Amino acid sequence: MQSPISNTVKNRYAMKRQLFILAVACVIGAGCNEKKNVMDDSKEVQAIFPKGDKGPAENFTGNAYNYSLVNNDSVYNTVVGNVYFEPGARSNWHTHPSGQILIITDGVGYHQIKGEPMQTIRKGDVVKCPPNVEHWHGASADTGLQQLYIVPNTEKGVVNWLQAVTDEEYSIVPKG
Amino acid sequence: MQSPISNTVKNRYAMKRQLFILAVACVIGAGCNEKKNVMDDSKEVQAIFPKGDKGPAENFTGNAYNYSLVNNDSVYNTVVGNVYFEPGARSNWHTHPSGQILIITDGVGYHQIKGEPMQTIRKGDVVKCPPNVEHWHGASADTGLQQLYIVPNTEKGVVNWLQAVTDEEYSIVPKG
Repeated sequence: MQSPISNTVKNRYAMKRQLFILAVACVIGAGCNEKKNVMDDSKEVQAIFPKGDKGPAENFTGNAYNYSLVNNDSVYNTVVGNVYFEPGARSNWHTHPSGQILIITDGVGYHQIKGEPMQTIRKGDVVKCPPNVEHWHGASADTGLQQLYIVPNTEKGVVNWLQAVTDEEYSIVPKG
Repeated sequence: MQSPISNTVKNRYAMKRQLFILAVACVIGAGCNEKKNVMDDSKEVQAIFPKGDKGPAENFTGNAYNYSLVNNDSVYNTVVGNVYFEPGARSNWHTHPSGQILIITDGVGYHQIKGEPMQTIRKGDVVKCPPNVEHWHGASADTGLQQLYIVPNTEKGVVNWLQAVTDEEYSIVPKG
């Protein structure tokens, strides 16, 4: 049997080892937290393009940002851009003389054609808005929306802006 | 001073604590490895849409997959789709009677107009291919390419396929 002094030394050694293991665990734990944040970020809405310019208050409720990708010309007759809607942000009601195609690249939002129920739209969805039909689109209340818009046949015109989507209109969240 | 037996009991207790801390460290470490893999995956080419159907060998070299988003009709006169080019894959030379707009959503690739140098294209880039101009596009040798294509004014036609891009043509990698 070993002496009490030897055991006391061993206890000190064991304590040091415990502290070392604890320190390693803390470092690993701290690393995990950092990575967890990165992972949490990846659940947020991802951007392909720069944020762009804030949409004017006369056409948008909340913070919506437009980044132009293809300007109108007589060769392609097509306007393309990206809009990032912050949570709760949405366009006014509006029409396109030649219709519009929306391609959702991330996030969650809504699209509504006048007189029809709101549609939930998500990453990968494609929405067609027929010519001269009143509609609006925007983010959900909790999650932003990244959408590409394509306006074809711009020789007929691009967009006609109408009234804002009221909080009451916006609050009718689709079921399911 | 405590008895040797008491110290032995304490040593066993200390060992159990060490094992417990070590187990916690291992669990945290395992969690970190799992998260690291998720992070590493995020460096790969990201998909917004399903992979789609393999492009036919008569129009593509290597593995290119097309996922149709908007079919041709007389309302929008616009065709939209996504192509994922695996590393090394590319289209044949081809023309569009009304031109084409490419929007790169992830990865790295090349675009070339006949008689002009190859252009490197990356996430966020927009490429316009004028009407009736021979061009090709595809992935880099090492990294895949995710691209949306928009063909406007389809009343004039959609695409005319030509000869394959040879390995020699493909191997002239742009500088910088």
